[in-house]
Amino acid sequence: MELSHLQQLARLIRSWIIRSTSEAGSGHPTSSLSATDLMTGLMFGGTFRFDPDNPAHPNNDRLIFSKGHASPLLYALWAAAGKIPEEELMTLRKFGSRLEGHPTMDFPYAEAATGSLGQGLSVGVGMALNAKYLDKLPYRTYVLLGDSEMAEGSQWEALQIAAHYGLDNLVGILDANRLGQRGETMYGHDLSAYERRIAAFGWRTVVIDGHDLEQICAAFLQSASHSGAPLMIIAKTYKGGGIPIIQDKEGRHGTALNAEEAALALETLGPVDRSLQGTITLPESTMTPAVTEQSAAPLAYAADKPVATRRAYGNALARLASRYPSLVALDAEVSNSTYADIFKKACPERFFEMYVAEQNMAGAALGLARRGKIPCVSSFAAFLTRAFDQFRMARYSNGNIKICGSHAGVSIGEDGTSQMGLEDIAMFRSILDNVVLYPSDAVSTERLVEEAIRHEGIVYIRTTRKETPVLYGNEEGFEIGGSRVVRKSEKDAITIIAAGITLHEAIAACDMLAAEGIHVRVVDLYSVKPIDREMLREVALETHAIITVEDHYPEGGIGEAVRSALFDCPVPVYSLAVRRMPRSGKPQELLDYENISRDAIMQKVKEVL
Amino acid sequence: MELSHLQQLARLIRSWIIRSTSEAGSGHPTSSLSATDLMTGLMFGGTFRFDPDNPAHPNNDRLIFSKGHASPLLYALWAAAGKIPEEELMTLRKFGSRLEGHPTMDFPYAEAATGSLGQGLSVGVGMALNAKYLDKLPYRTYVLLGDSEMAEGSQWEALQIAAHYGLDNLVGILDANRLGQRGETMYGHDLSAYERRIAAFGWRTVVIDGHDLEQICAAFLQSASHSGAPLMIIAKTYKGGGIPIIQDKEGRHGTALNAEEAALALETLGPVDRSLQGTITLPESTMTPAVTEQSAAPLAYAADKPVATRRAYGNALARLASRYPSLVALDAEVSNSTYADIFKKACPERFFEMYVAEQNMAGAALGLARRGKIPCVSSFAAFLTRAFDQFRMARYSNGNIKICGSHAGVSIGEDGTSQMGLEDIAMFRSILDNVVLYPSDAVSTERLVEEAIRHEGIVYIRTTRKETPVLYGNEEGFEIGGSRVVRKSEKDAITIIAAGITLHEAIAACDMLAAEGIHVRVVDLYSVKPIDREMLREVALETHAIITVEDHYPEGGIGEAVRSALFDCPVPVYSLAVRRMPRSGKPQELLDYENISRDAIMQKVKEVL
Repeated sequence: MELSHLQQLARLIRSWIIRSTSEAGSGHPTSSLSATDLMTGLMFGGTFRFDPDNPAHPNNDRLIFSKGHASPLLYALWAAAGKIPEEELMTLRKFGSRLEGHPTMDFPYAEAATGSLGQGLSVGVGMALNAKYLDKLPYRTYVLLGDSEMAEGSQWEALQIAAHYGLDNLVGILDANRLGQRGETMYGHDLSAYERRIAAFGWRTVVIDGHDLEQICAAFLQSASHSGAPLMIIAKTYKGGGIPIIQDKEGRHGTALNAEEAALALETLGPVDRSLQGTITLPESTMTPAVTEQSAAPLAYAADKPVATRRAYGNALARLASRYPSLVALDAEVSNSTYADIFKKACPERFFEMYVAEQNMAGAALGLARRGKIPCVSSFAAFLTRAFDQFRMARYSNGNIKICGSHAGVSIGEDGTSQMGLEDIAMFRSILDNVVLYPSDAVSTERLVEEAIRHEGIVYIRTTRKETPVLYGNEEGFEIGGSRVVRKSEKDAITIIAAGITLHEAIAACDMLAAEGIHVRVVDLYSVKPIDREMLREVALETHAIITVEDHYPEGGIGEAVRSALFDCPVPVYSLAVRRMPRSGKPQELLDYENISRDAIMQKVKEVL
Repeated sequence: MELSHLQQLARLIRSWIIRSTSEAGSGHPTSSLSATDLMTGLMFGGTFRFDPDNPAHPNNDRLIFSKGHASPLLYALWAAAGKIPEEELMTLRKFGSRLEGHPTMDFPYAEAATGSLGQGLSVGVGMALNAKYLDKLPYRTYVLLGDSEMAEGSQWEALQIAAHYGLDNLVGILDANRLGQRGETMYGHDLSAYERRIAAFGWRTVVIDGHDLEQICAAFLQSASHSGAPLMIIAKTYKGGGIPIIQDKEGRHGTALNAEEAALALETLGPVDRSLQGTITLPESTMTPAVTEQSAAPLAYAADKPVATRRAYGNALARLASRYPSLVALDAEVSNSTYADIFKKACPERFFEMYVAEQNMAGAALGLARRGKIPCVSSFAAFLTRAFDQFRMARYSNGNIKICGSHAGVSIGEDGTSQMGLEDIAMFRSILDNVVLYPSDAVSTERLVEEAIRHEGIVYIRTTRKETPVLYGNEEGFEIGGSRVVRKSEKDAITIIAAGITLHEAIAACDMLAAEGIHVRVVDLYSVKPIDREMLREVALETHAIITVEDHYPEGGIGEAVRSALFDCPVPVYSLAVRRMPRSGKPQELLDYENISRDAIMQKVKEVL
């Protein structure tokens, strides 16, 4: 496409940015304007390959707006491509519109929901990993980055891993417009500061004038042919670029132009040709051959040999690898503890070592998921707190991600408090519609890992460090939303609800109480969310009280989940949970110390009776 | 101290590392051994200044073990300083010992609880900021870093901000022992990879042999005299360094030597002189003059002028600045939205712009708190999820930190889902013993900010974007653990419990229902944790049902907090909360959409009646 045509298109896009945000009365016109020439050059300059009628085409180049607040630009670009009518642009930010304040999955051309800064490059890493190592497709992944968000550590996690994996199919476009939300960024227009850092992290860099379409198109041409390392196009731009009354001015971050300003802005922009349309190069038609699914081996756990559920997680991934060809695993440098390394040994080509960088691991998993993979990410449950923001955003991106947190609770023992996952159930329960599983033995872990893989959405699986007895037969089934009554009699006065390590304590307590003539029911609550309301209503009717026992802080945990499900039942729900500052010690000492051991359960039962 | 003496000390320390971990049967001897020469050189080589009899001395140099798993070394160092008897070293990792698996505040020489990687440098940044800009003291802050943890993005956040603030009183010591937990690190022994990156981030670097005490002492001497930028000592070391049977070997990360190996290791180490003691240079005696507290101005909110609680937060900080000279504020580049900028304008010298890097902001706040400041950190509630791991660890460090999350819930409106804090109550409730406050008007916000400042520990304050009516008189008091009944009659059938934006909806619903002859009680639950059990028991007795209303997901939120407090009361607790995927729109549209508006409350009341 000729430069003059691109310039005309950029002017049309600018006019839409101003008009749509002014119509909305809010939004980020200036952050959109700074990147307008860059994105016009990318999408319509000939380099970008995408079938606008088939956003799901596997060979489409991907474009992620990591600076999600530039959404008015994203929408205007697709209007310029003829896919969004001008009238729809004017619904920006209105209730019910697909064009939300920050991109969401309602917009068919959004690769991910963005708006929490510093996450898009990790998503791009996942997509580029997929193209280079898994599907072996020629698509390239472009990520539009803001300069403010380069302060996020997650960016540097993504930069380092992209270089480590030699992702020469990944291109960053750094829109260095100098101004953040409340003033100048750390480096302002010192582009060399970015260049030095990014180059030191192993990327190729090219510095351009981000408002010069000739330089822009040349840089993108380079992006199509370079190899060996990822490429960062560092562009000097102006916030509000192209609109003199707001260009490079402070205090204009998240503010629309008022009617008067908008009129003046459009006037300085001059007349635009609304019939203009940009053309996007179509992608190649090559496809990845489909891989045949094979059946998985049956389970064969010995009833008398304890197995840690974390090991069963690794076993499950390896066992299910051939049945689910889309399954991939990522781990944050602890695969010999989470036992993701069992999968790594079985399928090294489908395992990605993500090093001690949990945020980027989560973001990359989202990128892989968006390209059709089923990523299973693992680390210690405690360290998954590091990526809460990424998991939250993955949900908004409809991410199909499985997350395993090992080393749950004080029962890990001597390593001490910092290594204990004690808030992970609360964290993952708080994510909309997701699933939280907490198996107690090897068989249920294996079954639930498969259920997680089959479930579309985010699933969290909590595993235990210690070896625990195998409770179930190899043929038994377990389902999301289910539970298992593991001890029951006609005379049960109280129901104990537990999962993971505390289920074994509850069973021991139950058996010891039975010897004393006290009968309690014990339920394995392996599906914490969704929770088995039917079972809960039943035990609420059939027994006088419920005691929940969990190796987790009380807030947001199993006790609160049970109480919420029984919100209108008059049955009392007592909670045994971690309530004292945990410390180092033997697992059983710590279960006792926190009053979640068999002894504590027996005592509580007697107290409640 | 002579080199030969230091070498003898290092051998003694190595023997203790081996013996204490072998006695414990677990722990990280190899990660301790790689840094033994470095830390011996630092502490006993003459550079480090510390009064072992007064760990709280304001002029003590600070030493943070960011690689907390090297705790056996930390304990052995203080044994070598004569402050820990050898017998106590042998209690390592045992229940009740001060010497936990990773350093905790039980150990008097731990500057912070560490063990979640990549956090110590941020803590160091906070301490160095304090020395350079606030207390203007000559102490230096040293941070021992592992090479694996350099993959954490939080490290690069800390590196960039340290250079930005010219923290030449901050020294990093990178123990590059090549091996992570499950194998080689990303860069192995390519020290130039670290040097390039760290130098590009604006630090001075010096590369040394980390087992050569002469080079080590020379580097620390340099740390005492350099200026203008922070200094990173990049040391080539060997994991298990000095003990041939384990040195530089894979598969020896978190494993103690067995009895046979330990005997062999001690034999190759040769005889050690257990009477040796290292001498630490004493610190200067200069002190910061105490600042006189002044009284704060009274509140003067007009009853008829709505004020956003986020603005009241900023007002409170500025108003209380002279009363609490230790108060400082940090914000993540959104101070014009959180209104921390009101404090910045009032006290620029006590405000730190931390840019869009929430993890480092949280860690730096902990460092400031550990040096006696009361840091108030702010960002959008949604983006605080980014620093969950840091907040979790700050609790274990007994951090006295106040956290303000603005833009809570769907009521922010058009900006959309990514910007809405909808899981922050769940996150902060799950932290042991901390406080969660959620004021609804300007007066209670101001009072609760002061209560937060006066409270020792972590306090989370949730604020609202929208302007809301002033509900309370300027003289009214509010306390942690309290609540306020704002509507009450003799005939109340139901109690509505709300906070923040939904309290205003509840009041409106109550007044409209009263016009229809339906009487409900309304409670302002401004202290979500601790919660006012007494009030809850009272309303549970006096009314037939409770309806909680919150602009937050149901899990871990106000509804579950109330249910937990009423675990043995038969009163039903209905919860109105955010249950549908949020989107862009007008605040009131979104409150309606999520069924947490006045209309939804009225409907629910009628349904429950």
